Amino acid sequence: MINWNMHKLGAQPNNIRQLFEYGRSRAAVVGPENIFDYSLGNPSIPTPQSVNRAAMELLSAMDSKALHGYTSSIGDYEARNAIARDLNERFGAGARAENLFLACGAAPGLVAILRALSVPDAEIMVIAPYFMEYRYFSEACGEKLVVVEADIPDFQIRFSEVEEKLTPHTQAVVLNSPNNPAGTVYTRKTLEELAALLTRKSEEFGHPIYILADEPYRELVYGDAEVPFIPNIYPDTIVCYSYSKCLSMPGERLGYVYVPDSATDSRDLYLAIAGAARASGHICAPSIWQKMIVSCAHERPDLASYDRNRRTLYDGLMEMGYTVAKPDGAFYLFVEAPDGDSESFSEKAKQKDLLLVPGTGFGCRPYFRVCYAVDHDMIVRSLPVFRALIDECKAEQKEQRMKS
Amino acid sequence: MINWNMHKLGAQPNNIRQLFEYGRSRAAVVGPENIFDYSLGNPSIPTPQSVNRAAMELLSAMDSKALHGYTSSIGDYEARNAIARDLNERFGAGARAENLFLACGAAPGLVAILRALSVPDAEIMVIAPYFMEYRYFSEACGEKLVVVEADIPDFQIRFSEVEEKLTPHTQAVVLNSPNNPAGTVYTRKTLEELAALLTRKSEEFGHPIYILADEPYRELVYGDAEVPFIPNIYPDTIVCYSYSKCLSMPGERLGYVYVPDSATDSRDLYLAIAGAARASGHICAPSIWQKMIVSCAHERPDLASYDRNRRTLYDGLMEMGYTVAKPDGAFYLFVEAPDGDSESFSEKAKQKDLLLVPGTGFGCRPYFRVCYAVDHDMIVRSLPVFRALIDECKAEQKEQRMKS
Repeated sequence: MINWNMHKLGAQPNNIRQLFEYGRSRAAVVGPENIFDYSLGNPSIPTPQSVNRAAMELLSAMDSKALHGYTSSIGDYEARNAIARDLNERFGAGARAENLFLACGAAPGLVAILRALSVPDAEIMVIAPYFMEYRYFSEACGEKLVVVEADIPDFQIRFSEVEEKLTPHTQAVVLNSPNNPAGTVYTRKTLEELAALLTRKSEEFGHPIYILADEPYRELVYGDAEVPFIPNIYPDTIVCYSYSKCLSMPGERLGYVYVPDSATDSRDLYLAIAGAARASGHICAPSIWQKMIVSCAHERPDLASYDRNRRTLYDGLMEMGYTVAKPDGAFYLFVEAPDGDSESFSEKAKQKDLLLVPGTGFGCRPYFRVCYAVDHDMIVRSLPVFRALIDECKAEQKEQRMKS
Repeated sequence: MINWNMHKLGAQPNNIRQLFEYGRSRAAVVGPENIFDYSLGNPSIPTPQSVNRAAMELLSAMDSKALHGYTSSIGDYEARNAIARDLNERFGAGARAENLFLACGAAPGLVAILRALSVPDAEIMVIAPYFMEYRYFSEACGEKLVVVEADIPDFQIRFSEVEEKLTPHTQAVVLNSPNNPAGTVYTRKTLEELAALLTRKSEEFGHPIYILADEPYRELVYGDAEVPFIPNIYPDTIVCYSYSKCLSMPGERLGYVYVPDSATDSRDLYLAIAGAARASGHICAPSIWQKMIVSCAHERPDLASYDRNRRTLYDGLMEMGYTVAKPDGAFYLFVEAPDGDSESFSEKAKQKDLLLVPGTGFGCRPYFRVCYAVDHDMIVRSLPVFRALIDECKAEQKEQRMKS
């Protein structure tokens, strides 16, 4: 007798990965230079040398039992302390090692938070466009996912709808900024307005509504855009972080949950998160990467190549007449489908070996996602295809206007 | 609003780790040579050099994006294929890469299996003495844990009680052999008898009762003891494995779930396990260790020092008159408390700075656990303390007999 909800989740194809696999098979036929694959959100800049150097030194110099042995389930003190110090230097966070829980990446950390907040009839609010796994995570914790529509074209937050949809059962609002898939960043003004609203509603409901700040893309921000540290704006914020993107090591699974002292029931919440992780079989985050981060917590990615890709693609698409969300962060452009439907448009693009991810799965069907963590040459080669596609759309639209 | 079950789990002190911490603080007072700490089950033999060498080569030679990038969520094909080949060479398992799911250790793998089997009123049977986390894992999946009493002094299986306690709701029986804490191994005869019983009851109930073979200690076996490969005896067996003990890398989190083709609904069960892992935030097992195992799947631990410790301690305790479970595997001795109660006896031992783990938490109060993954010198130094303790017990018992 099998749990068919879990089966469904395991059997459900991952559209993005399917598209990626299609690209690989297609490349074998038409040649890799003729495939324009913007599907996967996989870092394309190398891991900082300091990270590999630290790992090599640990492997060559440290006693293997100490290096590879169990750490505390919440993480080595030295690693948590180094992360706390970094947060304090950058944001004046007032973080202590005791506020940090090291997880095998941001995803299991987020699930542990959600389970720690799972009470009868609990509701979790997300703002579209949103990372599709949020739905599976919260539903697996027995929580109801409440979606606030995308704020097109600014991709900030529709406060009126947030206020409408907040209920006494709302446990948390998940924020993902810089945003996957939109590549946008919530402004300080947006966050302050949300904080005011949540403060008012928390008082009204008589319990805190937490912000879950899911921030794997925190360091990937361009130009003069600011990524405010949300606990400094709204005390009831729990931060979920990953080193996958900023250190280009998504396969190695190191991340953390930060429960600031400022959060209501901070200590109890931390313990519930630790308990939820324990119940899911969490033992500790990979030891070698915990020990690496002690010397690399301050490392930041070299964004030059991402920024160059971002500019080339953004300028090119804008010049052709595409509507693109303000690309302040992460490594995604979120682009309006010229025919108004990202599903049909992505299909047309696929016919030309241009692989785009429809926004439907992110809760925003009119837009498609373009991941620019790719080779710059591919971007240049792909621009004529983008142009051909929008020109065709314009021609069709013109034709239809003539008909009517 | 917090989930207080999770809070309880996070707040609950880990007795074994507390004992370990006590030992460390005591060592500062009386000197490390005067503390006899048998508490933690932490490997004491070094990680095989081939493991560290493989990691060093990957770090120095492989493109960092390929080395540290996302793998498939079920694990790199090459890693799963290497493990399948090893299983086939050793056990004629008929394993394919498609039967294997790589997890961040055995624990999250086991939880994924339990969740995949979590249907309304599901029951999971465990045989005492059992790893205490089984209770938290199954209860977190909404399953009822059914405990079969320990088969003292043989620590095989009390079949009459198993049969009594099997119900139409029984989804699985968890077997842990070599056993933590007993250090015993289920014989082929025991497993064949259990297989016959479960086959009969599965037919009676009209659905398979799976064996969940939790085997982190599979390679730690001594003398001529055999650890049968359970899927070869009972087709409806799901194996849960970890490299923590056999490669002395418990902090690095690499393990797997093996769902053989022989298991009923094999493919559906595999998908449900993958879905359960996904719902818990599993992305992939640490990439560098997946790539390491491609060349190290055949590595076996050098058991000489464990075996020497085992013999010294076992012979010493037997000679003093202790009753000890047959120590065929893992790195534990399970010893009957001479006063009949491991709680009071461990407390007396603690007064002499000898740190033993009462069996109560494992569901077997009369026995205490001794982990011999320690320095051989400490074992030698500790023997007089064991002798003093049993002599005191004997004296007390004699006195009481005189009184009565």
